[in-house]
Amino acid sequence: MVFKKVTLIGRSNENFEGAVEDAIDRAEATLEDLKWVTVVDQAVELAQAEREYQAEVEVAFELHDGVDE
Amino acid sequence: MVFKKVTLIGRSNENFEGAVEDAIDRAEATLEDLKWVTVVDQAVELAQAEREYQAEVEVAFELHDGVDE
Amino acid sequence: MVFKKVTLIGRSNENFEGAVEDAIDRAEATLEDLKWVTVVDQAVELAQAEREYQAEVEVAFELHDGVDE
Amino acid sequence: MVFKKVTLIGRSNENFEGAVEDAIDRAEATLEDLKWVTVVDQAVELAQAEREYQAEVEVAFELHDGVDE
Amino acid sequence: MVFKKVTLIGRSNENFEGAVEDAIDRAEATLEDLKWVTVVDQAVELAQAEREYQAEVEVAFELHDGVDE
Amino acid sequence: MVFKKVTLIGRSNENFEGAVEDAIDRAEATLEDLKWVTVVDQAVELAQAEREYQAEVEVAFELHDGVDE
Amino acid sequence: MVFKKVTLIGRSNENFEGAVEDAIDRAEATLEDLKWVTVVDQAVELAQAEREYQAEVEVAFELHDGVDE
Amino acid sequence: MVFKKVTLIGRSNENFEGAVEDAIDRAEATLEDLKWVTVVDQAVELAQAEREYQAEVEVAFELHDGVDE
Amino acid sequence: MVFKKVTLIGRSNENFEGAVEDAIDRAEATLEDLKWVTVVDQAVELAQAEREYQAEVEVAFELHDGVDE
Amino acid sequence: MVFKKVTLIGRSNENFEGAVEDAIDRAEATLEDLKWVTVVDQAVELAQAEREYQAEVEVAFELHDGVDE
Amino acid sequence: MVFKKVTLIGRSNENFEGAVEDAIDRAEATLEDLKWVTVVDQAVELAQAEREYQAEVEVAFELHDGVDE
Amino acid sequence: MVFKKVTLIGRSNENFEGAVEDAIDRAEATLEDLKWVTVVDQAVELAQAEREYQAEVEVAFELHDGVDE
Repeated sequence: MVFKKVTLIGRSNENFEGAVEDAIDRAEATLEDLKWVTVVDQAVELAQAEREYQAEVEVAFELHDGVDE
Repeated sequence: MVFKKVTLIGRSNENFEGAVEDAIDRAEATLEDLKWVTVVDQAVELAQAEREYQAEVEVAFELHDGVDE
Repeated sequence: MVFKKVTLIGRSNENFEGAVEDAIDRAEATLEDLKWVTVVDQAVELAQAEREYQAEVEVAFELHDGVDE
Repeated sequence: MVFKKVTLIGRSNENFEGAVEDAIDRAEATLEDLKWVTVVDQAVELAQAEREYQAEVEVAFELHDGVDE
Repeated sequence: MVFKKVTLIGRSNENFEGAVEDAIDRAEATLEDLKWVTVVDQAVELAQAEREYQAEVEVAFELHDGVDE
Repeated sequence: MVFKKVTLIGRSNENFEGAVEDAIDRAEATLEDLKWVTVVDQAVELAQAEREYQAEVEVAFELHDGVDE
Repeated sequence: MVFKKVTLIGRSNENFEGAVEDAIDRAEATLEDLKWVTVVDQAVELAQAEREYQAEVEVAFELHDGVDE
Repeated sequence: MVFKKVTLIGRSNENFEGAVEDAIDRAEATLEDLKWVTVVDQAVELAQAEREYQAEVEVAFELHDGVDE
Repeated sequence: MVFKKVTLIGRSNENFEGAVEDAIDRAEATLEDLKWVTVVDQAVELAQAEREYQAEVEVAFELHDGVDE
Repeated sequence: MVFKKVTLIGRSNENFEGAVEDAIDRAEATLEDLKWVTVVDQAVELAQAEREYQAEVEVAFELHDGVDE
Repeated sequence: MVFKKVTLIGRSNENFEGAVEDAIDRAEATLEDLKWVTVVDQAVELAQAEREYQAEVEVAFELHDGVDE
Repeated sequence: MVFKKVTLIGRSNENFEGAVEDAIDRAEATLEDLKWVTVVDQAVELAQAEREYQAEVEVAFELHDGVDE
């Protein structure tokens, strides 16, 4: 019953919650038993026409199979 | 006129602002002269059916009586 | 093609996104070629009647002229 | 349903686990609904004849009444 | 024989030592067996007419009774 | 001969060494050429009846195939 | 009503308070509406005959005009 | 359009740039749409006859499929 | 004789030293009495065809005139 | 009555307490008046057949003679 | 012309400057070519009758002979 | 078989690798069994006519005799 953490960066044109949701949604699509998410960085990309909110998060989940390379 | 800081973790099913408000509301219920709040951590609990936003905050207030144990 | 970073603190009576937008808007008013913004601190001022959200951000932009004192 | 965190330093003449247990036992004596403990520092006092292990921990618990001064 | 740490912000119109003393004096007024104090932040408030030195300190003391909420 | 690091959280009802061993054992089950492990966090979950020791570790190993998504 | 922060290093042959004052005095000479100062580093230069105290501070002030390059 | 970050340690007998290149080359061999790399640690192994430069880097790339365990 | 620090990001298609030189050269073009530079971040942009080395540095210089907004 | 701190890395095939003891024992063999030890890093070497626990500690002691080069 | 840094903790019953001076004086007694001192921690010991100010500093000096064990 | 770490600052008029080599060379002149070196800071001194690269490194080596004061 080991947990693993991966680092994702979600993105949204709306706000930071949208960017966090974006990352969680992606993780839930292929992983089971997500446990919690920690926000480690918040940024806004300004180089394009529209502002893009970015949230770097660590997602913790229960490991069911082996650790992938 | 010494200030004291305590660490609270507010929670909300809506978003991070809701979690911060939750902690401030609780502090205001029994403390006077709150001064400021600093956000030190943002997380999302995913183990339950509904996502729960959590904000760990430090609340600074003016100390009126002695320092409690 | 050097970038420069400056530290601003945006403020809003609504929420943290509003405070971040406040800082970006001010930077855009006099600077060109903004690249990205990083959120380095989030706080709420409670000493006044209304809660004031504050977001300390670092704004990166492309430097066109010399570095000012 | 706000959580609060307090910082304790448990002590033991045996080892670090003993020092962590010491702090948790004390917290459990007067607080209900402890949630988790994070180890933030580990030290050994050497000035006395016997080595004393110390563990600084943050204890998170559910707040039932108001926030004490 | 558990220790507890609380975070205080002492203030002085003279200097940082005065601000540290301010916080220690307040802690000593209601707590027994203070052990040590660590300075974690030093700041100067400039918004009022007179400069106010502030020292954020962590005060460690021996816990005699239960842990307060 | 590139190394890769992954972040695991081992768990044990005994102590922190048990939690670290738990994470290493899991990594060894599917990875070859483990090099070293760094402890980045130690915590105790108290919400269940029994205390659960958790150790967050970074495991470094030699990469034999490509980097997985 | 955006704030900006700049980083200055004040110097004094007397003590650290003198070095902090040195930096604040310089900032006040050309900026209005200084808000607060945070001490981020304290050092002593020993290469010259006389010891020179240095205090690196961040000065926050209200921005009246545009952000300079 | 979520990004993911992985941590690699590149190695070179020449210099740190060589170690960084080593890690990037390996990542490019099996991943598409690499975005950026951040250097988080630089070290030199001295136990063998020849000095080995090591660079620990975080590689960010666009995630095309699901998140692997 | 106050010093000021500004944060620049130099860029180079060659290596990190080139990126640091790029930032120093730009600072020297308009500032006098540069004192020292500290490297605070090293990164490589991979989104374009050619790898771009970036070095974020803090440049300290002696302040001759007032502090600019 | 100045204190000095040195950084040692103790090693043990048993556990982290053994590694900490290893470092303290070595320091006590040639130094007098050891005061305290702080654990700053915990790691496990996995490259050899047997797991080796390592604890990086800072040892503080009272300085009796001059500071050695 | 390599520099070396050592960590000392000076002590004073007066104030923090006294504690810093205490450490510098001790270093100057046996070392030549001291370059600079950085303050890394400030604390006050309260266990004795009189308050004792402590300043942990890093002292940088030019190395004339070999590096001692 | 305890390791010890010392902090050196190597210097070079060429580049950062040169400064790291400078520190390693000095350590190797009087110490045996060097194990590894970690780069903790990179800076450039600009006050003289020629730019001087400086690398602050921690050098770990196996301790053969007692710990020196």
